[in-house]
Amino acid sequence: MNELTINLDSRSKKPLYEQIYDYIKSDIQNGRIPYGEKLPSTRALAKHLEVSRSTVELAYEQLLSEGYIESAPYRGFFVAQIDELYQLKKEEKKSERKIEKKKVYQYDFTPNGVDLNSFPYNVWRKLSKDILMDDRTELFRTGDPQGEYGFRSAISNYLYQARGVDCTPDQVLIGAGSDYILMLLGMILGTEHMIAFEDPTYKQAYRVIHTLGYETVPVAMDRHGMKIQDLESTGADIAYVTPSHQYPTGIVMPIGRRMELLKWAYEKDGRYIIEDDYDSEFRYKGKPIPALQGYDAEDKVIYLGTFSKSIAPAIRLSYMVLPKDILKAYRKKGSFVNSTVSKVDQKIVQHFIEEGYYERHLNKTRALYKNRHDVLIEALKPLGDICEISGEHAGVHILLTFKNGQKERNLIEKAKKADIRVYGLSDYRIRKDEKEKATILLGYANMREEDIKEAVAILNQCWRK
Amino acid sequence: MNELTINLDSRSKKPLYEQIYDYIKSDIQNGRIPYGEKLPSTRALAKHLEVSRSTVELAYEQLLSEGYIESAPYRGFFVAQIDELYQLKKEEKKSERKIEKKKVYQYDFTPNGVDLNSFPYNVWRKLSKDILMDDRTELFRTGDPQGEYGFRSAISNYLYQARGVDCTPDQVLIGAGSDYILMLLGMILGTEHMIAFEDPTYKQAYRVIHTLGYETVPVAMDRHGMKIQDLESTGADIAYVTPSHQYPTGIVMPIGRRMELLKWAYEKDGRYIIEDDYDSEFRYKGKPIPALQGYDAEDKVIYLGTFSKSIAPAIRLSYMVLPKDILKAYRKKGSFVNSTVSKVDQKIVQHFIEEGYYERHLNKTRALYKNRHDVLIEALKPLGDICEISGEHAGVHILLTFKNGQKERNLIEKAKKADIRVYGLSDYRIRKDEKEKATILLGYANMREEDIKEAVAILNQCWRK
Repeated sequence: MNELTINLDSRSKKPLYEQIYDYIKSDIQNGRIPYGEKLPSTRALAKHLEVSRSTVELAYEQLLSEGYIESAPYRGFFVAQIDELYQLKKEEKKSERKIEKKKVYQYDFTPNGVDLNSFPYNVWRKLSKDILMDDRTELFRTGDPQGEYGFRSAISNYLYQARGVDCTPDQVLIGAGSDYILMLLGMILGTEHMIAFEDPTYKQAYRVIHTLGYETVPVAMDRHGMKIQDLESTGADIAYVTPSHQYPTGIVMPIGRRMELLKWAYEKDGRYIIEDDYDSEFRYKGKPIPALQGYDAEDKVIYLGTFSKSIAPAIRLSYMVLPKDILKAYRKKGSFVNSTVSKVDQKIVQHFIEEGYYERHLNKTRALYKNRHDVLIEALKPLGDICEISGEHAGVHILLTFKNGQKERNLIEKAKKADIRVYGLSDYRIRKDEKEKATILLGYANMREEDIKEAVAILNQCWRK
Repeated sequence: MNELTINLDSRSKKPLYEQIYDYIKSDIQNGRIPYGEKLPSTRALAKHLEVSRSTVELAYEQLLSEGYIESAPYRGFFVAQIDELYQLKKEEKKSERKIEKKKVYQYDFTPNGVDLNSFPYNVWRKLSKDILMDDRTELFRTGDPQGEYGFRSAISNYLYQARGVDCTPDQVLIGAGSDYILMLLGMILGTEHMIAFEDPTYKQAYRVIHTLGYETVPVAMDRHGMKIQDLESTGADIAYVTPSHQYPTGIVMPIGRRMELLKWAYEKDGRYIIEDDYDSEFRYKGKPIPALQGYDAEDKVIYLGTFSKSIAPAIRLSYMVLPKDILKAYRKKGSFVNSTVSKVDQKIVQHFIEEGYYERHLNKTRALYKNRHDVLIEALKPLGDICEISGEHAGVHILLTFKNGQKERNLIEKAKKADIRVYGLSDYRIRKDEKEKATILLGYANMREEDIKEAVAILNQCWRK
């Protein structure tokens, strides 16, 4: 081939070399210039198109680097052999985005709510600004895979004071949310384990662990929490528990049961307890219940905590405290995984804790939630003949267990008709049991006091129908 | 027991109820008050200690809720049965923090460097401030597990224009870093796959995938990249490739090889290609090489990208583009996993892209890296008799292959003695092969031009010794 006529548009935004490149590429793709065909020399084509030789060279180089043509020393440029080029044609893809119309309820007693009006926006903005001002390049460099040491240190101090957790900053691992923390733990432990769950349980963790490929087993609870004898009989080697405030029943595991659980872990090598301390910050009567980890004398407890509940769900910041053996395994199998939390966020929360904002924020939300809790308990009094309250004085939801034989789904349906969303305990059970009494969860963290009163009055009416 | 003498300190910061609680708890723990012992009534103890009855009640309630005592209706409070309390004593833990003294070199040719002096701090700060000003509560609510739609939309537009990637925002998944993205992909695909890697390869991804439990297999390369015949014979069903700029060799997979690779994937159900497009932004000659994903007609390519290379390592923001089948699997098995990236960060980068800052930043760093690249190539000319350069004109490192039979580790050692850090290609190989020619990687993204000149002059001397 010695001629190649291309209509160049010198007023186009597209550079001339790119127009030449596009033209030849599409001719090769369409088969108009076949395999093996020699292209005109750069000198000849430049002359023919009345452009500079370097323009043509640039076009040829691009074709070369993408592999459409090949160069043979002293002979020139030839079209490369490319199979299956006809496959290049693709149908246009259309976005399949479904606009999901989620029903919005007038009142929503979600147990996962967080009050965001009390969030200290100004403090957050100030900390964020100061940090971006100070650290410059250091802040954007690769960070410590385990989380920044200063931040881990702030967390271990906080955990010691507030939760009785006994650890050094070395044992703390930072991650972007509790789901990720479990994924990382899965990578460290491997999935050759059987993990026992309280039933009912925190389903999100259960799903993550199940999807990671672990064998899981539900263990029944009595009024003290997970039954250790039942746990023993499952053959599980890891127990996932929420001892300070069982999710969702609100049971506090008493010291006696805690000791039994620890004893279970001590009895065999390789047994561990995962203590998920997800919302221990919120207790409205007396002091917080200390963490199980603080009683562990043989490094058997993997402690999980999060700032998503206590600061805001969009703060993707959770952590775990590893016992010695697992820390060793982490250093071997997981410490090469880069951190999932930006240094900026780590610094903000570190300062938030160290400068006392976190404690103040906790006190503020605790007072707020306590008022809502009290209003809810008071508003529920007229329902005393049809249901019993449990799980009060802590957390951000209570449970109503019905005495009158109504079905859970009917109660939810009746509430729904009155534009109120309530949640059934069945959703948290691993083993469904039709014989269990209907139990409804009412969360109040995100409900105004007036709304609580109004909504409960309506529920009282519609649940009696 | 009818008396219980406790020395209360009314000037202590610790509330009186807590002093009573602490005293009784430690007496139970030490066995001074044995199991079954009846505690004094709240009335009697209050009188005895000269405190209000509610103070004692509060102390008892705390002991009750932690399970140290139990109440029997009409009879009073008794010490609960707690096994193994002697185990409570723990030795004090000492921080095992080792202050790792990493050798700091005068010149470090790391191939993973990023220039952070050119980072647009002011823009970042402004965007961050504006976003924290605007959105308030919405910004801190739970986000879309897949990533915010607006951000995914910005990414899919950018990918189409800059990389020829053909996707809708539905197919885009946001995650906190490339390691996490691979962990999430592992959760979606399950680990019952054999993944083929180019050899040498990007070891970080290899390690993550290996640790997740996948079977992995190295496949040899020729000058066009992964050999498809070798791939075919491995029995792998997933191929992990870096076609636009092979890491670390810098090979651009030509269109012909790309078509062969796609054909391999089309031939059997369940075969997929993972295209890691980690640093395609940096090309100093001609246009960027379009992504393989854009040629894929049968939804076989899982496309991975990141902002860690192009913005800053501490920006924990990567993404993947899923083909239809895998997207379905994600919706079933992975979409319940909460997002690992804060909404604030997603918004910042979304605006960074949409307001043109990203393109400007890329142009600026590309120009900067090109200069450093050119200075390095020029400085290396005197070494032409002992080594050959490859992998130039793109990315942020080049390779030097030695003709004079020197050993790689000797070259690295000689450089080290001159306080210069260079990297050996062997570190990137899955199969070690002593017969391979010594090849050194020189990264220049984080080196000043003067330093490049000085360091190369020193290398030229010490490598000849």
